[in-house]
This record gives sequence, C-alpha cells and structure tokens, in this order.
Amino acid sequence: MQAKAVGLYQGLPISDPASLQDVTIAVAQPTGRDVLVAVAATSVNPIDTKQRQVQAETDTPRVLGFDAVGKVLAVGDQVTSVMVDDVVYYAGAVNRPGSDAEYQLVDERLVALAPQKWSAAQSAGVPLTALTAWEALFEKLPLKADRQANLGQTVLIINGAGGVGSIAIQLAKWAGLTVITTAGKPATIDWVKQLGADVVLDYHADLDQQLQAAGYSGVDHAIIFHSTDLYLPLVTPLVKPLGTIVAVVTNQQPLPMDLLKAKSLNFAWEFMFTKANYQLPAMATQGMILARVAALANQGFIKPTTKRVIEGINATNLKTAHQLVESGQMLGKVVLTAPFNA
Amino acid sequence: MQAKAVGLYQGLPISDPASLQDVTIAVAQPTGRDVLVAVAATSVNPIDTKQRQVQAETDTPRVLGFDAVGKVLAVGDQVTSVMVDDVVYYAGAVNRPGSDAEYQLVDERLVALAPQKWSAAQSAGVPLTALTAWEALFEKLPLKADRQANLGQTVLIINGAGGVGSIAIQLAKWAGLTVITTAGKPATIDWVKQLGADVVLDYHADLDQQLQAAGYSGVDHAIIFHSTDLYLPLVTPLVKPLGTIVAVVTNQQPLPMDLLKAKSLNFAWEFMFTKANYQLPAMATQGMILARVAALANQGFIKPTTKRVIEGINATNLKTAHQLVESGQMLGKVVLTAPFNA
Repeated sequence: MQAKAVGLYQGLPISDPASLQDVTIAVAQPTGRDVLVAVAATSVNPIDTKQRQVQAETDTPRVLGFDAVGKVLAVGDQVTSVMVDDVVYYAGAVNRPGSDAEYQLVDERLVALAPQKWSAAQSAGVPLTALTAWEALFEKLPLKADRQANLGQTVLIINGAGGVGSIAIQLAKWAGLTVITTAGKPATIDWVKQLGADVVLDYHADLDQQLQAAGYSGVDHAIIFHSTDLYLPLVTPLVKPLGTIVAVVTNQQPLPMDLLKAKSLNFAWEFMFTKANYQLPAMATQGMILARVAALANQGFIKPTTKRVIEGINATNLKTAHQLVESGQMLGKVVLTAPFNA
Repeated sequence: MQAKAVGLYQGLPISDPASLQDVTIAVAQPTGRDVLVAVAATSVNPIDTKQRQVQAETDTPRVLGFDAVGKVLAVGDQVTSVMVDDVVYYAGAVNRPGSDAEYQLVDERLVALAPQKWSAAQSAGVPLTALTAWEALFEKLPLKADRQANLGQTVLIINGAGGVGSIAIQLAKWAGLTVITTAGKPATIDWVKQLGADVVLDYHADLDQQLQAAGYSGVDHAIIFHSTDLYLPLVTPLVKPLGTIVAVVTNQQPLPMDLLKAKSLNFAWEFMFTKANYQLPAMATQGMILARVAALANQGFIKPTTKRVIEGINATNLKTAHQLVESGQMLGKVVLTAPFNA
C-alpha cells in the first residue's frame, strides 16, 4: 500500500528546504511478528536530528521518527500479543522506516498498549524517552523497578528538563529515589520541580558546592542526559565510591576515564536501540517496559511530558520540530499529530 | 616496638642502590579494630613498583608490601573476628605501612585465616590478586560467586598468566565459566592451561579471528589485566551487546569510549583498595572474600599461584622481586619469606 510520509534523500541543514520533504512510500502487509500501524502521532527526539544530519544520499527516501502511537490495522502470522484495532505506542527500530509516516511496520515485541487516559499527543511523546530512562535507571543502575523500592538512595540527573530527563525524574521518584537534577532558567527549574525533583542545581555554577550546600556529601548514582564530554569530569567527583555513571550522548573526544578509577566507579552506555539493532532476546523487554509505563500513566504516577503539539504531520511542521530539538532548549517533548497532509 | 623492614625515602629506579633500603621502623600496639601481625611472607605486585616509582621524598621511610601472611601477636580492644596465634593473610591498605616489615598493623575487617594446607610462601601470593579477581568477577561482572553457577557464559581474560590472571582463571572455572585468555609464549600457554583456561589466544595475532576460529562469535564478559589503553579497543569488538568490560590498569591517555556505545556496553574499574581507602562499610567484604578463597584452597578448587620464592626479606631480595615484576614477564607471583635480615 501507499503511505504519505516525511522523508529525506540526503543529510542537509534543517534550514535547507530539501532537508525534509513530503513523500509517498510503499508499506508492505505485515508478516511474521510485524504489525501494521496507522500512525496517529509522532514525536521528534535528538536521534532524529542526528540521523538526518548524517544521512547518506539515497534514491529511496529515508523516513525518520522513533516515537509513535496509532491503531493496529493488521498483524503478521506469528503475532500473539496485540490485535487489530488495539491502540499501541512504541519507539520502534532505528534501522527500519520510522513513524513519520501514515502507516508503519513494527515488531510486536517493541510495542505495548498506549496509556488509556492519555491523548495521542501525550502518548507519542513517551516511548523513546521512557525506554531510555527505564533502562538507565533499572537495567544500568542497580535499582529496583518497583514503587518506593529504593528509598534512601540518591540519583543525580544531568539535564532533567529535556525529553528523557522529564520522564526519568518521574520514574526515579516513583521508585523512591531522592532526585537531584540540573537546570538553568526559572521556567526550567519550575518544570523539573513539577516533575518531582527534590534538589535543583544551577548548571552555570559549581555543582559540588551546591550539592554540599544542599546537605549531600555525594550521590549514589548519576545519569548524564547532556554532553558526556562536558559532564563526565564534572559528575565524577560527585559520585560515591563503587557508584555508576550512565551516559546516553556519544562522546566527541576520548574520555578521561582515569578520573573514575580511585573510587572504582562504573560507566555504562544506555542506547535504547541496541536491543532491536542486534535482535537480542532482550528486545521483548521493551514492549514489557512500555506496558509498565502505561500502567504508571493510567495510575497517575507519571504525567505527560509533551510540551508542544503541532497539528498536521508534513515536512513544514516536522522541520519546525527538528529546529526546536536542535536548539537544545526544548522542555519536555514536541509531538506532531495526524492528519498527514502533503 | 621496633621492627626490621624494607623501605624507601624517595622514588628511584630499581637499579639505584637507594631505591629500597633496610630500615628499622616503630610499630605501635594495636588499638580499635587493628591486629598486630608478625609477617612470615610478603609478595610483590605491580602496585608496589608503581608506588615506589612515584614516592615523594620523605624523612620517615615508606614501607610497601600489600600481601602478607603471618601470626597474630596482639589485637585491639574492638577486635571480634581473630585471635592471638591465628595465622592470617591479607592485602591490607595502600595508605598504611605495608607488609615488607617484621610487624604490621592491619584492620581485622581486611583479614581472614590463611589456607590451612598451604605454606606461607603460597598463601602470601594470594590476597591482593584474589581480591582483585573476585571483585572483578563477582562484584563488577553480573556473575554468581558459587560453584558451577555461571555455566554457559564466557569470560575473556586479557593476560591470564600474570598474578591476577592466574587466580582469576581458577575462580572463573570454579564458578562454571568458559574461560578464554591471552598468552604468547609456550611456557605461558602451558601455565594458563594448567590453571584451567579453555581457549588460549595468541596476543601477537588478531584476537577476533582466533576467537571465531575457536567457535565463539563473541564473549559475554571481559576483564583486562594489562594495558587498558592498548586492549580496550581490541576487546570492545569481541564483547556481546549489553556486556561489561572490567579494567584494572589506569589508562595513560583518554579512552575512545564511543566504541562501546552501539552495543550499550559497560565499563567498570576494579581497584581493590577503594573499599579501605574510603573506609566503606564494604571493606568488611574483603575479609569475607579471603575466607571464601581460603576455603576454596583448602578444598582444592584453586592452587597456589606463587611461582618464585626468595628466602629472606631484605632490601637486596626485594629489589630482585621488584625487578621481576617491572619486567612484565612474571608468571604468577613472586614471594619473599622470613626471616627478616638487614
């Protein structure tokens, strides 16, 4: 079948009219464990802008978009976990056509039923960030994924106001952690406090001094959701011996890992597409994580992080969303909602 | 009381006669949780030679030695786990006077009863390396510290023939792992096979090709007991997604951590003095680990790694031992045994 979509033929600056274009793509009927989804909303993450920038020239348009909610139209012959007409949400896989398209194929193991009480715009902002935050907290850090299960432990979250940070703060609070995060502007500080942050450090000033002044000699765990190059040396002195630092942003220069040795610290990469890219058995955990996150949304433990909704999925609107994400100043998430129009 | 010892007043090349000197030091009676030990044997590790090289000038001689076995002569008023006349073994703490001395004070939480059937020369070769290997395997890697508890999992041990590698291979085999290690010379290859290594890769040739030829698509876990700068880029392609690489040798240059990201790998420092240096509650685990290692020795699950014994603890003999360790060609461990002579 044919589907309206937004795609690109080569990596170009977002200011270039050809950087994202309205296109039509072919989408096959689902086979095996794939399901076919009619996308109702899609969200933009930093991986979209990075992938766009480095896209090699291609004759077939590359479709980005790694966050979606939509209705299941058809299922492959091996699908056992979702049915036609289910409303599902998912991040999908970075090595397959993305969710900036009217119809999309996605492996059932990567999807879950969307939060029941949330709008499409609210649900579409969640999957990629929630998977990243959940895996960072409960797979990379030695924390328990249960309500109030980690009382007395502290986690430092660098850049709590961004897309991933906004959901990470909430998941950490649900799990009983004391959350210390960084923010710079009044609106940003307000936002992370609304999300539950216990202590907010101004990233313009000395982090260690502020932490001590707040009554903490150090933190048990740390997650860096911003420049790893910039923050690893700043965060290392704050983490208690034997602790772990999780990072999500690829370093641009080699890292001074020797700084971590005296305290026998651990460094962990969190990249949520690893499981699907390598087709690991663990890829099925992503559907399970999204199901648990939906339950937390339904129960009111987490609230939507979508801060900006743009109606209409097309090249013009997607460029606006990419620009917002590239600015690095986005609070929470930006989402585009159907209809698709060319 | 006075004790014969070997010490230094400044960092000098081992070829300098003043690099290690016969000295007399004062040792206090034990208080608190300290015990006073009459050292029967001491061993040399890479940390001795590194600490010697960088020693700042001092009026009081610095005594190295972070591996000992000996008899308890007296205990502090808070000691509850060992008694006078117990034969104990320990690595001790790097920020206190070491075991290259007739008498030494050590915190009871860092000691355990020595293996019953082993000689002093055999027991003294074990503590520092066993603590490093045990913490790397069972605290830094997600492995269970029980017999045959990790069947079907593979660990790559870089430099299996050295001091730490020699005990790590044995502990890994006891725990049920398939052990893949590196060695270069016939004698070294023989030694790691005697210790139980399942697959030996020649470090002069391509590791990945040899691993594939041996029937392994990759390894679940890796421990680098040699240059981290050299081996991190070589080991990273061999480790399966979501796996962990443990390192013990401080990097000399910043490390290309971006290589680890696509597979969401973890990097963990193992430095066995962290617990004592920071006086962590976890320091008591070191006495417990040594007790378990002694039990494994008594049961025959591990055999001694001491390969060279030098009789007489004095400056001349200690220089010989430092030279052996600095050569980087030592199989297993070198141990000096009492008496102390000046």
